[in-house]
Amino acid sequence: MSLDQVLARIDENQPKALERLMDLLRIPSISTDPAYADACDSAADWLVAELRALGVDAEKRPTTGHPMVVGHIGESGPHLLFYGHYDVQPVDPVDLWDNPPFEPTVEDTPNGPVIRARGASDDKGQLMTFIEACRAWKQVHATLPGRITFFFEGEEESGSPSLVPFMKENADELKADLALICDTGLFESAVPAITTSLRGLVSEEFTIRGPSRDLHSGMYGGIAINPIRVLAGIVSGLHDDTGKITLPGFYDGVEEIPDEMRSQWQGLNFDHARYLGDVGLSHPAGENDRTPLEMIWARPTCDVNGIWGGYTGDGFKTVLPAEAHCKLSFRLVGKQDPAMIQQSFRQYVQDNLPPDCTVEFGPGKGAPATVMATDDPAFEKARGALSDEWPRPAAYIGCGGSIPIAGFFKNILGMESMLIGFGRDDDQIHSPNEKYDLESFHKGTRSWARILDALKR
Amino acid sequence: MSLDQVLARIDENQPKALERLMDLLRIPSISTDPAYADACDSAADWLVAELRALGVDAEKRPTTGHPMVVGHIGESGPHLLFYGHYDVQPVDPVDLWDNPPFEPTVEDTPNGPVIRARGASDDKGQLMTFIEACRAWKQVHATLPGRITFFFEGEEESGSPSLVPFMKENADELKADLALICDTGLFESAVPAITTSLRGLVSEEFTIRGPSRDLHSGMYGGIAINPIRVLAGIVSGLHDDTGKITLPGFYDGVEEIPDEMRSQWQGLNFDHARYLGDVGLSHPAGENDRTPLEMIWARPTCDVNGIWGGYTGDGFKTVLPAEAHCKLSFRLVGKQDPAMIQQSFRQYVQDNLPPDCTVEFGPGKGAPATVMATDDPAFEKARGALSDEWPRPAAYIGCGGSIPIAGFFKNILGMESMLIGFGRDDDQIHSPNEKYDLESFHKGTRSWARILDALKR
Repeated sequence: MSLDQVLARIDENQPKALERLMDLLRIPSISTDPAYADACDSAADWLVAELRALGVDAEKRPTTGHPMVVGHIGESGPHLLFYGHYDVQPVDPVDLWDNPPFEPTVEDTPNGPVIRARGASDDKGQLMTFIEACRAWKQVHATLPGRITFFFEGEEESGSPSLVPFMKENADELKADLALICDTGLFESAVPAITTSLRGLVSEEFTIRGPSRDLHSGMYGGIAINPIRVLAGIVSGLHDDTGKITLPGFYDGVEEIPDEMRSQWQGLNFDHARYLGDVGLSHPAGENDRTPLEMIWARPTCDVNGIWGGYTGDGFKTVLPAEAHCKLSFRLVGKQDPAMIQQSFRQYVQDNLPPDCTVEFGPGKGAPATVMATDDPAFEKARGALSDEWPRPAAYIGCGGSIPIAGFFKNILGMESMLIGFGRDDDQIHSPNEKYDLESFHKGTRSWARILDALKR
Repeated sequence: MSLDQVLARIDENQPKALERLMDLLRIPSISTDPAYADACDSAADWLVAELRALGVDAEKRPTTGHPMVVGHIGESGPHLLFYGHYDVQPVDPVDLWDNPPFEPTVEDTPNGPVIRARGASDDKGQLMTFIEACRAWKQVHATLPGRITFFFEGEEESGSPSLVPFMKENADELKADLALICDTGLFESAVPAITTSLRGLVSEEFTIRGPSRDLHSGMYGGIAINPIRVLAGIVSGLHDDTGKITLPGFYDGVEEIPDEMRSQWQGLNFDHARYLGDVGLSHPAGENDRTPLEMIWARPTCDVNGIWGGYTGDGFKTVLPAEAHCKLSFRLVGKQDPAMIQQSFRQYVQDNLPPDCTVEFGPGKGAPATVMATDDPAFEKARGALSDEWPRPAAYIGCGGSIPIAGFFKNILGMESMLIGFGRDDDQIHSPNEKYDLESFHKGTRSWARILDALKR
């Protein structure tokens, strides 16, 4: 019954665990702002000290940006790598915070107590659930199960510029049997979940040019091509009437959800009315033959993220502009090839340029979707462990966003990732008044103990 | 031979006339931007002082916006009203100007010297041609011919909100036998011209709204409607494949050009290749069954003047925006009804909104096209006078732009207008580096002296 001992120890430790989390939250480790570089360094030092207290051989590792923290413990058995990030988002607009963002407070709310601070949920509270699970395990067993590598970065919120080079340089050291990533959430704030698919992303910035200068629409309206009209036609033509994307070859590599996954998703009874209602909407706007969950998790999309051209100030100016600009991105699923989609998109734009118009593309970026090999028995073990801890059984879910680290682990280090986290929809990550439920922190810690126990079998 | 004396006096006055114009150009009278309200007021004061120096009973007349300048001189004889506007367009993007827009400079160019500044051509340089013609006339004759009313407004570039109320309130004072309007150009920068038709304008600003806040395109992309996509579809659907505008009823009131006008226009041998080539284009982009001159002078159009939404800064942000914005205008011809077109457009937008989207329209504005009664003998007199001054005989032409004042004079005061101006195609009005040729300024002044002489007979 050693797991029960560990769980009991976690319960006992909880007040001190909360104090430790508050210590970490007091460090304003904003990675995007150079003014906080020292704070990022301090957060890395703090983590090294915590890991060393657990007997982990941990150190701060320099990069051209903020340092990595890498630690190892254990000699044999299954080798797990745990990933989190100690950096946080900027806090502006700071006047919308009810309390200073780096002075964590515990508050009672109608849904139970929460700890409120920048980084409480993303990702300091989440990464500490794993450390606290390890601490209790160590206290009970005097050791940790198998081999564990801890890997924390400090640039996640600023695009992880050092991550890929660091992983490539230290591939042998970092490669494990399985990665555990704690940066996701409970499904609908209630169902423990393992995220098994992440959408990829192709982003494009481009400019359509027509006349060599801005024109007066009285002098040239009717005879001169208007680049905004051309851009509108290009954007408008990307979707057909059913919501499908029209680019040739776009759906190559898109796979139907396996029946088993489909029935699991159906079992989630996704409340899309609430999901949309939270943001003032009521109609799922994607392909009209797909369910709402498919639209977000399993179907590729195209969204214009920004558009501008002509006169955008106050009042009216009858200008016929020389150029129009667009930022646009595709979310990818399955085996869609970012390079092929970029090529197809650019060809489509070229094919739809009228005479006298040119297009200039920015560098563009692409990352494929990530789909986990859930037939690895570790997934079912972890799912069982999570189901034991929470009132509702755990589910495999998708994620509409991109968590590039999972793709890097797969493509650079050749290992699968299990994305397990305890965030809630109302955690307000990246926004003022970020919070983490104490229940997430406590049951998250207990969940990791159960998962470590399950995986060592 | 008193006309010759006046013309000689104009030639002598030219250096001082240029200095006076530069004084006026130094006043940054941008009417659309409240920050320049004082400058508009100063420009009005400056004109009042100039007119009083000519013996005109002139005063600044308040409106709810920028003031009017009204002056009268003379007791008997034919009553002419001269109209111009002292306000100018905004100057952005200001970094594309070679010199500060309100520090006028005289530059030599391959086509002769020009004065470069915002408003040099539109309309300060043009209105000063009439004032300078009056000055020389007064110096020679000690009086002006017949009765002249001067009428300058300061809101032409911001839609003239005060103009109609002011004209209605002061109709008896302003009504003359004929209006002279100096805000147009030489045909192909060479042929003196009287503009006998002007396109009307309907302008619309509107915002399409979807989600109640900006969303993360990973969490909501595919399920939430994207207002930029909706806007692009609305803009794109306004034209069909032949270049025609699709709004129901849009072409009601559009008339074919009379045969006589058509043959005059053909005689102009419009060099559309050069007209388009000047702005980096080569293909007439309007209705594919119309000649280039028709596209500009005799056919209605629709142009997007500005569009914006989502993230438009540096780098990339995968935002799914809450709203998208558009400024758009229609040019009207013949008897098209602005109110009907506004209604048809708004209905079209409403009809093309998907569920969850709303539209908010700004106030919108409309003015019908104006077609002059060229059978008034004054037209042929003025055409003869212009032909005497310039190397090529004067022509009746159309204008693709909107000069609503001509319609107001006709509809509110019951008088015809003669639109005579000396701008050139490369004056870059409404754009950076606006200029006015010194030849336009000088021969324009001489032209008005000839026209005043011809009309008094």
